[in-house]
Amino acid sequence: MEREKYMLEALCLAREAARDGEVPVGCVIVKDGLIIGRGYNRRERERSALAHAEILAIEQACKTLGSWRLNGCSLYVSLEPCPMCAGAIMNARLDEVIFAARDPSMGALGGVIDLYYENFGYFPRVYGGIMEKESSALLSGFFSSLRKPPTGEV
Amino acid sequence: MEREKYMLEALCLAREAARDGEVPVGCVIVKDGLIIGRGYNRRERERSALAHAEILAIEQACKTLGSWRLNGCSLYVSLEPCPMCAGAIMNARLDEVIFAARDPSMGALGGVIDLYYENFGYFPRVYGGIMEKESSALLSGFFSSLRKPPTGEV
Repeated sequence: MEREKYMLEALCLAREAARDGEVPVGCVIVKDGLIIGRGYNRRERERSALAHAEILAIEQACKTLGSWRLNGCSLYVSLEPCPMCAGAIMNARLDEVIFAARDPSMGALGGVIDLYYENFGYFPRVYGGIMEKESSALLSGFFSSLRKPPTGEV
Repeated sequence: MEREKYMLEALCLAREAARDGEVPVGCVIVKDGLIIGRGYNRRERERSALAHAEILAIEQACKTLGSWRLNGCSLYVSLEPCPMCAGAIMNARLDEVIFAARDPSMGALGGVIDLYYENFGYFPRVYGGIMEKESSALLSGFFSSLRKPPTGEV
């Protein structure tokens, strides 16, 4: 139930992203039972290719701990990380990644490639599929709302 | 000579990193002959796993253009990008990456893996080995200086 508890936090952040018109992805970083970093996708708002949920959460966690090393931390994210984010997780020495929905077009932890099976020096543990249905429902709801014509124009 | 001109800019930024006691890596982003983003490794100074030269340069270039899309831009970096940075370059839709020294332990453009040969939707062009000797000399000089005992303690 521990994993579901933190994934729910990530999903709540993903809903914040959706409210801002962003692809709904949310992320929290946990150390010793405390959330030390939070983030949700803000690519359009910040006009930055770097503003993924995981990057913003890692940035906050590094500030919280005053270190680039996030050993002993777990990262919960509602969508499988892309190569940039999977690489950042490795660089920050996080212990483990827990993700919800798989990403067959950009996923770097099994979706397209499996970065942590490659010959880099550090390998976080990975758990996929935690609350996958809830995250997939949020994502497909968001994308189907984009395809609806605006009210009054039907 | 165009490539060497911008790579020299990246190498000058790498020297700034070395002066701060950071692994010397520098990066510039060029659009239509103008440098629109600069960065050098600041991981220790900023205590952030994200503060690689490429990430800082992409952040600045996105701000300069007011967009997360860096189409039409070239990124010059003195060391082969790691997975995080190679992923960020892909996410930002940069046209091409030009790097100097290869990184056999963390390189994601041939050193360890070749990210742009995988089945993602976007593929920047890659040119490696431009001013490789100069960058390698800077890196090996930095690492050998770390192994020297401090003055007066010999």
